[in-house]
Amino acid sequence: MKSKIKIKDGGLKIMKEKFVYDFKEGNANMRELLGGKGANLAEMTNMGLPVPQGFTITTAACTKYYEDGENISENIISEIEEHLKNLENISGKKFGSPENPLLVSVRSGARASMPGMMDTILNLGLNEEVVVGFSKKTQNERFALDSYRRFIQMFSDVVMELPKKEFEDIIDKKKKEKGVKGDTDLTAEDLKDIILKFKEYYKKNKGEEFPNSPKQQLIEAVKAVFRSWNNERAIYYRRMNDIPSSWGTAVNVQMMVFGNMGNTSGTGVAFTRNAATGENKLFGEFLMNAQGEDVVAGIRTPQPISQLEQTMPQVYEQFLDICKKLEDHYKDMQDMEFTIEEGKLFMLQTRNGKRTPAAALKIACDLVQEGKIDKKKALLSIEPRSLDALLHPQFDAKILKSKTKIATGLAASPGAACGKIVFTAKDAILKAKNGEKVILVRLETSPEDIEGMDLAQGILTVRGGMTSHAAVVARGMGKCCVCGCGEIEINEKENTMKIKDEIFKQGDYISIDGSTGNVYGEAIPTVDAVISGHFETIMNWADEFKRLEIRTNADTPKDAEVAVKFGAKGVGLCRTEHMFFEADRIKAMREMILSKTKEQREKALKKLLPIQQKDFEGIFEALKGMPVTIRLLDPPLHEFVPKEEAEQKELAKELGVSLEDVKNTVKSLHEFNPMMGHRGCRLCVTYPEIAVMQSTAIISAAINVLKKHSDWDICPEIMIPLVGDIKELQYVKSVIVNCADELIKNANIKLKYKIGTMIEIPRAALTADEIAKDAEFFSFGTNDLTQMTFGFSRDDAGKFLEDYYSRSIYEQDPFARLDKNGVFKLIKMAVELGRKTRPNLKVGICGEHGGDPSSISLCEEAKLNYVSCSPFRVPIARLAAAQAAILINK
Amino acid sequence: MKSKIKIKDGGLKIMKEKFVYDFKEGNANMRELLGGKGANLAEMTNMGLPVPQGFTITTAACTKYYEDGENISENIISEIEEHLKNLENISGKKFGSPENPLLVSVRSGARASMPGMMDTILNLGLNEEVVVGFSKKTQNERFALDSYRRFIQMFSDVVMELPKKEFEDIIDKKKKEKGVKGDTDLTAEDLKDIILKFKEYYKKNKGEEFPNSPKQQLIEAVKAVFRSWNNERAIYYRRMNDIPSSWGTAVNVQMMVFGNMGNTSGTGVAFTRNAATGENKLFGEFLMNAQGEDVVAGIRTPQPISQLEQTMPQVYEQFLDICKKLEDHYKDMQDMEFTIEEGKLFMLQTRNGKRTPAAALKIACDLVQEGKIDKKKALLSIEPRSLDALLHPQFDAKILKSKTKIATGLAASPGAACGKIVFTAKDAILKAKNGEKVILVRLETSPEDIEGMDLAQGILTVRGGMTSHAAVVARGMGKCCVCGCGEIEINEKENTMKIKDEIFKQGDYISIDGSTGNVYGEAIPTVDAVISGHFETIMNWADEFKRLEIRTNADTPKDAEVAVKFGAKGVGLCRTEHMFFEADRIKAMREMILSKTKEQREKALKKLLPIQQKDFEGIFEALKGMPVTIRLLDPPLHEFVPKEEAEQKELAKELGVSLEDVKNTVKSLHEFNPMMGHRGCRLCVTYPEIAVMQSTAIISAAINVLKKHSDWDICPEIMIPLVGDIKELQYVKSVIVNCADELIKNANIKLKYKIGTMIEIPRAALTADEIAKDAEFFSFGTNDLTQMTFGFSRDDAGKFLEDYYSRSIYEQDPFARLDKNGVFKLIKMAVELGRKTRPNLKVGICGEHGGDPSSISLCEEAKLNYVSCSPFRVPIARLAAAQAAILINK
Repeated sequence: MKSKIKIKDGGLKIMKEKFVYDFKEGNANMRELLGGKGANLAEMTNMGLPVPQGFTITTAACTKYYEDGENISENIISEIEEHLKNLENISGKKFGSPENPLLVSVRSGARASMPGMMDTILNLGLNEEVVVGFSKKTQNERFALDSYRRFIQMFSDVVMELPKKEFEDIIDKKKKEKGVKGDTDLTAEDLKDIILKFKEYYKKNKGEEFPNSPKQQLIEAVKAVFRSWNNERAIYYRRMNDIPSSWGTAVNVQMMVFGNMGNTSGTGVAFTRNAATGENKLFGEFLMNAQGEDVVAGIRTPQPISQLEQTMPQVYEQFLDICKKLEDHYKDMQDMEFTIEEGKLFMLQTRNGKRTPAAALKIACDLVQEGKIDKKKALLSIEPRSLDALLHPQFDAKILKSKTKIATGLAASPGAACGKIVFTAKDAILKAKNGEKVILVRLETSPEDIEGMDLAQGILTVRGGMTSHAAVVARGMGKCCVCGCGEIEINEKENTMKIKDEIFKQGDYISIDGSTGNVYGEAIPTVDAVISGHFETIMNWADEFKRLEIRTNADTPKDAEVAVKFGAKGVGLCRTEHMFFEADRIKAMREMILSKTKEQREKALKKLLPIQQKDFEGIFEALKGMPVTIRLLDPPLHEFVPKEEAEQKELAKELGVSLEDVKNTVKSLHEFNPMMGHRGCRLCVTYPEIAVMQSTAIISAAINVLKKHSDWDICPEIMIPLVGDIKELQYVKSVIVNCADELIKNANIKLKYKIGTMIEIPRAALTADEIAKDAEFFSFGTNDLTQMTFGFSRDDAGKFLEDYYSRSIYEQDPFARLDKNGVFKLIKMAVELGRKTRPNLKVGICGEHGGDPSSISLCEEAKLNYVSCSPFRVPIARLAAAQAAILINK
Repeated sequence: MKSKIKIKDGGLKIMKEKFVYDFKEGNANMRELLGGKGANLAEMTNMGLPVPQGFTITTAACTKYYEDGENISENIISEIEEHLKNLENISGKKFGSPENPLLVSVRSGARASMPGMMDTILNLGLNEEVVVGFSKKTQNERFALDSYRRFIQMFSDVVMELPKKEFEDIIDKKKKEKGVKGDTDLTAEDLKDIILKFKEYYKKNKGEEFPNSPKQQLIEAVKAVFRSWNNERAIYYRRMNDIPSSWGTAVNVQMMVFGNMGNTSGTGVAFTRNAATGENKLFGEFLMNAQGEDVVAGIRTPQPISQLEQTMPQVYEQFLDICKKLEDHYKDMQDMEFTIEEGKLFMLQTRNGKRTPAAALKIACDLVQEGKIDKKKALLSIEPRSLDALLHPQFDAKILKSKTKIATGLAASPGAACGKIVFTAKDAILKAKNGEKVILVRLETSPEDIEGMDLAQGILTVRGGMTSHAAVVARGMGKCCVCGCGEIEINEKENTMKIKDEIFKQGDYISIDGSTGNVYGEAIPTVDAVISGHFETIMNWADEFKRLEIRTNADTPKDAEVAVKFGAKGVGLCRTEHMFFEADRIKAMREMILSKTKEQREKALKKLLPIQQKDFEGIFEALKGMPVTIRLLDPPLHEFVPKEEAEQKELAKELGVSLEDVKNTVKSLHEFNPMMGHRGCRLCVTYPEIAVMQSTAIISAAINVLKKHSDWDICPEIMIPLVGDIKELQYVKSVIVNCADELIKNANIKLKYKIGTMIEIPRAALTADEIAKDAEFFSFGTNDLTQMTFGFSRDDAGKFLEDYYSRSIYEQDPFARLDKNGVFKLIKMAVELGRKTRPNLKVGICGEHGGDPSSISLCEEAKLNYVSCSPFRVPIARLAAAQAAILINK
């Protein structure tokens, strides 16, 4: 995109880059270089629409500004001056001239829209002399002085970083002095005095006069906009929206037009379609005799756009015409800013309008029906992540309006929930089984809480981040969860909690919103989200274009059913250990762990066998012959034993062993780095009898279901976790095969099954050619693979990742987005090596990344066979997979 | 090596492999296929030496035996029968014939010598009928019956796995019954009765008759030898000696000759040179009228080989001649077995003789001087690891002879030490500073013990394995250490320890041997090892041929000096944190950690600065301008804070803060997986002031030393640990550069310095091309890289690795030997990627693998610039590097 001019000079090549473009030199395709706003201003200019002219300083200039140690180079300055001259010629006005002054606005404009994140300076070009001429020229001294006052204020705040409040105080003081209320009640004389005081304050604090040279003002303003690319809120916004810091922002310098020049002037914002519902009807607001900032300030109430027809019929007509032209041109709903200066309409901005997820679906379907776009473009116009909001219950919006939140935590898992407070998983189970709706409030959750979490309406924790146990499990369940709400103090003894001096008892109602993190101290009714026909249409179109198969991570028949309803075509990961945490099962599990001999262990495992088998039967039934991948026991055994003495005592009593025995076992299971400890297939190597029990449960379940449904194509995929070496896999595989083949032989039935492995240890990826000799499928466990590849654990990284974000070392959470340069390199390598050995190797991904659109796009790139995600992410994955297929095969 | 015959049959290729070789068909170069013993028997046969003839079943047959599910295929059996027929022709005897019976021995013989690890069966071919014929033929009924008795015993034990003891009991019972003492006192009739009882016992226990068919005996014996490849002691031996389980063993079937046929028969073992001293003089023993097993049993005392000259002068002459021929032929000291049957000499085996390290050096130098081999071959003849024994103090061998060990632990760090018992690092320091020699006895050591460990003569721990803190640190220091000696019970209250009911008080003398793991309950004087001139000669030759530079890991000036004495050409890793654990320093470190503001932290760091700087000056002085790589602070901060409440109280008092404060800090530093936590460069990102302090200390030290020695080429290499992303490196680098450049400018001196990184996180290796943009050198931290690549931590893997070894899933400890298929693949990738970006990138290795010969060979393969190891491993590394260069560039 960069336009470079090569000048050959002997053997030496000098590249001269162009850093400034007049609006008429650009077009909509140049948004990388000109930013979104600049590119669209150029496009509108070339469409012949009424745009106040100007020029754009490119994003490349911003990058260079940072490369040069936050300095604008001389050649860029002279390019700016050159284009300023062009602008003077176009406008017939002169920058800094008291006679016929050219005033400009200086605005940011990045490649992606970052509304309100960066800086803007209006009315630039005014000084002591120019304001006098401007006042004569406009024949409106008060207007001219007010413009100057606004400029000084903005420049001091934005460019010179003086506190905004001091300036407002000066105005307030003057208003008090004069006994008036509104800014508009101040006279020209008042404004002159205010300007004087502004300048005094400026000099006192900056140690120098307020800059009088318009050119100096301009360069300083440009620098300020460049600087604002790296202000805190911009960094945060970029991280949230996946915008690389390397992009930089462009700067648009545009001739000022004034909506505040009287009653034939005005300003407004409009959308070509309704952004909330998607209805095909112009939608917007305007305010007469006002500048953009007045609309934002909300002092006067704007009028609906339709009123403009009455107020200025010709302008309205012209505007309608422009709206139609823009939508036809961009083939998408447009969000536009306009200003009317003394009866003349100017377009200040157009862009594809932001919209609600429901509106996005409707607009996409409508545009296809109107013949404006094809299905591919429709699919690409919808942000997959936004669908999430359509899949969970929400608070009744009308009722919510009148409610005030009492605390805020992290929006850990979307949806809204309302219920009675309970403080333990046990109470949650008790009450829920009684038919009561409860919210489980915990300091933090642990695997033992799993059943209580499942039966609660929502989960609220005091500690823990977006990747804490509560957050991860809740998202997996599609259950509303607010995490890390530090304002809550739980009093365990009294079964109460305190938020800002208010005490809540067990049984009191609260409501939580996992999409915002808000907590409400009362009952707010929720409504189930309605999935309109447009949603289904879009999903069907997505299925037409996607290549990747979408599976789900489901540990129970219930989860599996939900996912199938959302369009999952198989189970990519069934975690068998989650089955062991429920009340009746954990006991047998603990008995197994406390066993001292293989015989004792086998006895305990025998108790678990029928439970596991029943779960598997339920999942096979729910999937109706679609593939199911079941992972053998993965977590270290210490996760299953109680840490508290009271519970240890209880367990000792139950099992008829000494407390000492229990304590010794717990102690012997302690690990320094449990993430890198005795888990996954390592458990099966030590205790092959566990693998035998699990294989028996899987194969027996498959046999039973197949006997009932002989037409189903049941083929269990048994997945061995944490393999790092082919020999580990071979050993565990031999244990499984011996067991499975005997069961199948004895049942006298034809049942196929596959044995494969998780690729979640870097060494497995590095030796994937070896591993594929014995693995019939790979599934990337990207959670662990990310941990090992980066060398930090999710549980601990929270402590230092904030420092990394604030220094722009990382821009994204590698546990949320697949790391393209590191982890994905391993994945690609493993896929290539694996398929070299076994060309038809089935490869999928089952980490949390499987539900993340940007990661799904990488999965498409690596030609995986499927992605697997939590049930509520299945529709998102379907759309993301379609987008990836369309974009990559374009 | 495998000889394959291709028979074209239409489009189909049938490959027929040859699995059995007559001795005359082989030669010494075929040891991969024939095993060491088989290849040498073949070679001797072809040299015309008197070898009892026979044939070798190849290692490939062993591999096939395992592939076929522990079965010998029909075609191998018929090959064996064919070669048995050849042997009958050569010998003129007949297998299983009562008239002129052919008896054979069946012996294992792997590619590498594994003495005593696998099975042997002698006198095979005897049965009820044959023994009668054999007795007639030899005219010695008692001899024939004794041979048969021995065969039944061996076959039942080795092949049929019946307990040896039961057979010995039958003999003992008979001896008692007859009132005789020696086996030789039993008559033919007695032996007949014994044979009867043997067979009865056999039938009772195996449920069938003892096999009477010689062919069946032979096949079963061959299978037993194959099986013995995977017996427990063979697996263990292979792991210790780096022998892959995939090699398999060959089986040698050889005509029996008898050294026990009377007074003109005998058997013996000899070395062409002295295996203990290397002296060029025949050395060995023989026993007349005996079989090999009698020599081993030690009932009669053998005579020195020189006595043979008197006993059988002609045979002696012939033997001397053969010895000379063999040494000239193999160009190395030979270890030979021979048998004299009725005055006729037979050679049963020859191989390169095992020797002591000192002998190895002398023999290598002598052989070069004698013109028998060149320097390359001399260097290749010495096992680098064996040099270790020459570098540490040893017990006075004469005194040690009379002493009995009281306990045994793991031989964690070689050398011998003697001193008074102390139980705490504090006491060690106190007494050592008083001039007393102490042995530090601890349950386990922690980083806080470091100074006490350094001042003690040796370290003895109750818990912990070969990679425990004590073991790792002691090896680094070159200090004697015995670990995991579970027989010790420490009584902390009374300052005593108990070993097998004996109580030792603080101040009592003990002695420990880190090369054997033995503990002695008294003082045993040690002697410093003498490094003879041969050692120096070999080291100089090694330096001629090696390409890799050898550096050392040294944290103190003292360590650095030792290493330079041993030939180190630089410091590859100086761990700065070890400097912080000493008593006067840990306090300031803790103050830094407990700081709440940057200012407080900087104040505490200021106290550490002069200490660090002085250490660095010492190291720069010791290195005299050779390169020094210094790593910034690496471990997580919680390693520096006290865990016990008493110590926490003390600290709170010292620093004038509340105990609560200390506790809160300790709690906040807790990590779930500290190995994957807030450490390495992550600390510098959070607290850049730490990097500033350390850079200041390094650069200031370099400036000071350079001022004193302006001719030294001082160029500190500052190493940033745990980098996973180029931006981390860039951030920390910018902090260092800002600080360093200002110091250099202010000092008005020319000082170069380099900034590089550890590659110890898989992601760093994967993105090495990026990282090399900013890193001027790489150093592979293979300890961490191995942990992350395998996904298990050293501290936890101990629990399950034993299961892995016993199931042959792993054959080696990946923390001791660089993992060729996984970790090394990452290393090679990183070197290639890094040099693509920066062709002159300096690359080294500084993990513990840097001192391991097999890993050094991989470093040569990957064309690293240097390896860095602990001071006492430098000579080993020099030799290993030379060997690698010679072998790879061959």
